[in-house]
Amino acid sequence: MAHKQKPIRSDLGWSTSDRIVVRGKDLPGELLGKINLGDMAFLEVSGRLPTPQESTMFNAILVTLVEHGMTPSSIAARLTYAGAPESLQAAVAAGLCGLGTVFVGSMEGAARMLYAALPRERARTATDAELDEIARRVVADYRARKEIIPGLGHPIHKPVDPRTTRLFELAAENGFAGGYVKLMKRIGAEAERAAGRSLPINATGAIGPICCELGFNDKIVRGFGVMARAVGLVGHLLEESESPMALEIWQRVEDEASAHARPPGK
Amino acid sequence: MAHKQKPIRSDLGWSTSDRIVVRGKDLPGELLGKINLGDMAFLEVSGRLPTPQESTMFNAILVTLVEHGMTPSSIAARLTYAGAPESLQAAVAAGLCGLGTVFVGSMEGAARMLYAALPRERARTATDAELDEIARRVVADYRARKEIIPGLGHPIHKPVDPRTTRLFELAAENGFAGGYVKLMKRIGAEAERAAGRSLPINATGAIGPICCELGFNDKIVRGFGVMARAVGLVGHLLEESESPMALEIWQRVEDEASAHARPPGK
Amino acid sequence: MAHKQKPIRSDLGWSTSDRIVVRGKDLPGELLGKINLGDMAFLEVSGRLPTPQESTMFNAILVTLVEHGMTPSSIAARLTYAGAPESLQAAVAAGLCGLGTVFVGSMEGAARMLYAALPRERARTATDAELDEIARRVVADYRARKEIIPGLGHPIHKPVDPRTTRLFELAAENGFAGGYVKLMKRIGAEAERAAGRSLPINATGAIGPICCELGFNDKIVRGFGVMARAVGLVGHLLEESESPMALEIWQRVEDEASAHARPPGK
Amino acid sequence: MAHKQKPIRSDLGWSTSDRIVVRGKDLPGELLGKINLGDMAFLEVSGRLPTPQESTMFNAILVTLVEHGMTPSSIAARLTYAGAPESLQAAVAAGLCGLGTVFVGSMEGAARMLYAALPRERARTATDAELDEIARRVVADYRARKEIIPGLGHPIHKPVDPRTTRLFELAAENGFAGGYVKLMKRIGAEAERAAGRSLPINATGAIGPICCELGFNDKIVRGFGVMARAVGLVGHLLEESESPMALEIWQRVEDEASAHARPPGK
Repeated sequence: MAHKQKPIRSDLGWSTSDRIVVRGKDLPGELLGKINLGDMAFLEVSGRLPTPQESTMFNAILVTLVEHGMTPSSIAARLTYAGAPESLQAAVAAGLCGLGTVFVGSMEGAARMLYAALPRERARTATDAELDEIARRVVADYRARKEIIPGLGHPIHKPVDPRTTRLFELAAENGFAGGYVKLMKRIGAEAERAAGRSLPINATGAIGPICCELGFNDKIVRGFGVMARAVGLVGHLLEESESPMALEIWQRVEDEASAHARPPGK
Repeated sequence: MAHKQKPIRSDLGWSTSDRIVVRGKDLPGELLGKINLGDMAFLEVSGRLPTPQESTMFNAILVTLVEHGMTPSSIAARLTYAGAPESLQAAVAAGLCGLGTVFVGSMEGAARMLYAALPRERARTATDAELDEIARRVVADYRARKEIIPGLGHPIHKPVDPRTTRLFELAAENGFAGGYVKLMKRIGAEAERAAGRSLPINATGAIGPICCELGFNDKIVRGFGVMARAVGLVGHLLEESESPMALEIWQRVEDEASAHARPPGK
Repeated sequence: MAHKQKPIRSDLGWSTSDRIVVRGKDLPGELLGKINLGDMAFLEVSGRLPTPQESTMFNAILVTLVEHGMTPSSIAARLTYAGAPESLQAAVAAGLCGLGTVFVGSMEGAARMLYAALPRERARTATDAELDEIARRVVADYRARKEIIPGLGHPIHKPVDPRTTRLFELAAENGFAGGYVKLMKRIGAEAERAAGRSLPINATGAIGPICCELGFNDKIVRGFGVMARAVGLVGHLLEESESPMALEIWQRVEDEASAHARPPGK
Repeated sequence: MAHKQKPIRSDLGWSTSDRIVVRGKDLPGELLGKINLGDMAFLEVSGRLPTPQESTMFNAILVTLVEHGMTPSSIAARLTYAGAPESLQAAVAAGLCGLGTVFVGSMEGAARMLYAALPRERARTATDAELDEIARRVVADYRARKEIIPGLGHPIHKPVDPRTTRLFELAAENGFAGGYVKLMKRIGAEAERAAGRSLPINATGAIGPICCELGFNDKIVRGFGVMARAVGLVGHLLEESESPMALEIWQRVEDEASAHARPPGK
């Protein structure tokens, strides 16, 4: 069963007794005190430090994703913490496990849809008429397959998601309102027209095209949600430790869920 | 089994159709485009935005913790990703699960030790002589209990951990080199003297006291490691998706681990 | 934002001061000392106790899935344990996170493929000729889409996976060698013929059709792998606690992965 | 940084093209169709197959731990599944992450307490008078330290936990009602006397001493809870997929948690 060994190699960092280098930068000398956590995340995933415009835009994306109040993910983290308060890291992990296709995945889905419809080399040169045409085709295809277009619609933020307005404003100010953002706006408008009802571009639907503008691979886009929510989940666990709700949720759910089965009066 | 209901309440955020408020701040209007991810983390855990000095210091702490190269945590995340590439969030979660007492926990342990030895109200007023005396007592107590002092010693970064030098420099520049930082330095020196060997204050040993200076509860300190490593793990998974090592690690481990049991030549 | 409340209800169990009922059975009186863990799993997912034949078959499926030696999943669990030995549960969780589409998923994929090709109502009545025809069509479809047929092929167990032989033998002895098992065998033979190379039905390819024979929903089939591997991972963590390998794996990977980047001689 | 390599070795299993051996047993030939999942778990953690008495006792322990109705752990798993239904394994993992010191840990705590108070070599020979004396000392020590004695007390099952009655009955029938079980009963009685209130030995308080009788290392005892609950969590997720409650829990929690902060009428 011996197999031919292949090399194991990583370019993320290295260290010796007196040096620590991350992505080619000296950590103490070039990074500490000079860059913020969002820039460090950019360095990790792209291998270089962001420009000031990229820094503003990328930090805005991450800040958008940190805190969404009580969500399935944050409630799961709090319930986990109630059982294992000695393992804060495992409670954050439990919360992250739910960031799948239903919620955070739409951001990745939007990016994938846009890259498929508009290859990078055409994103800068496509005319408004061409983008209109692509948007019509994308919406028609999704409707024909009866699939939901990722990044559109929101149960609460109607008719406009205020995060989207602000993110697109920042995209325009920082030079990221190119073909992908234009196309997403057209897809949103066309989908509303075809469906005959309000379908606002939600926050993940704004982040998807901006990630395309920033040049990120769509398969890492979900990771931005994961890193940002890790920050938010730590906030939830701190609040849970000071002002708990997990045991109350448990009690209520347990009481109600089995009420039909328990003998009367018990 | 009916129980008296208690209220369920969170102060992290709320939203209506046209507003999203996090920790009392309007997310689109007051935060997006204006603060970075590290400041958002500070807002989450302290309920207010950082001062410029706090922002520099807190971002430096988080940036220190993002990327430590190949660690048990990052290898575990890569192996998990190899089996479930459709669940990037679960691979990050797997990596976070290992941030327990052995590695990241020392940061929390250092903060707890310092708070126990030097109550907050005395941290500003303690004299050098008093800090010397506290350090002697702390080191003697740990040695008597044969316990390891959290935050001291490093297998590679000897005789000085370059991150510690830089973090303490930033602490001094930004007004956080108070009683806790002074006490930690004295504990390090006293421990080296008592042990008769090099025991550098490592990065977690620098972060512990600075977290005390920033006023953070010691039970949330581990959370800073968790959020920062979530960022780093996303970087590892992106690299793994482009230049994988997980299957090679698996093959090598499997071959070697059972070589003694397999029939010869198989 | 008030929404109309829907009921919360579960039929898995209930308890009062002196009774504990699981799936309608009195836990102390009807289950403890009378059934084994595999039967309890059957009760959990089907709502009734297994027949003796079902018990033998279902336990055999689960026993097959417990221990696969050093896998990405078990190595990830060990690495996690090395960092957080106080959280054995989190190390098992980390190991389970990798049981996704690449490894365990093929069992679920095989069941889904079979249900799609052969509806339950026809599984008992289809003739050999009809099954041959269905197998030809399934293989042709997968080949046309250039997709891998789930449950076929194994890197080591060639030309026959000995678990498959035994599982199909048990299926025949216990009355579960019906249409789904027959169809899977035909798909395997047809795929080998079409590909011109050995494509043994592997263990997951045997378990898939037997789960169909047992009447399980394909979406829960992955769960059998998850529960069985949880058992196996506890075994790995006990061995790791007594005879560790995680830190050695870490050291080797770290040394090799960054060797190209470190200054010579460091 | 080159380090001296140590061997990597596991004795859990090995395989060649035509053989699969787990813990020294031929998996297809000696295990499949012959043992149940609980026996396989016993084999994994002890390296040998159980006697019939051990099989009955150990399966009863595991069956006790599978299903506890709606718990923080099962609710967390359901919330996770709602966000990532494509990753059933990650939802189970999220549920397991909460099996820490608060709930499942008491089983491990009871075993550790008993081993510390009564070394294995004395467990067979200690007289009733000696066990009485040890019980008095253990209870006095816990009370002096104001610590909770693991395995005693239950919010619902009063004055007797019916699982305990049955587990101790099975222990007596199968030859496991030795020194550790006797000591636990005495500790329970003495604790009730000292506290002046009902303190029933709960299920984890019964399992702890029986695990000592079976000779298991206390650090693996928590693992029995983990493996059993993995089985139960799969049951919960199947029910959640067919009759969901996660989104309803989410909605209710979200509505109530931020009601105080939202503008009136929103």
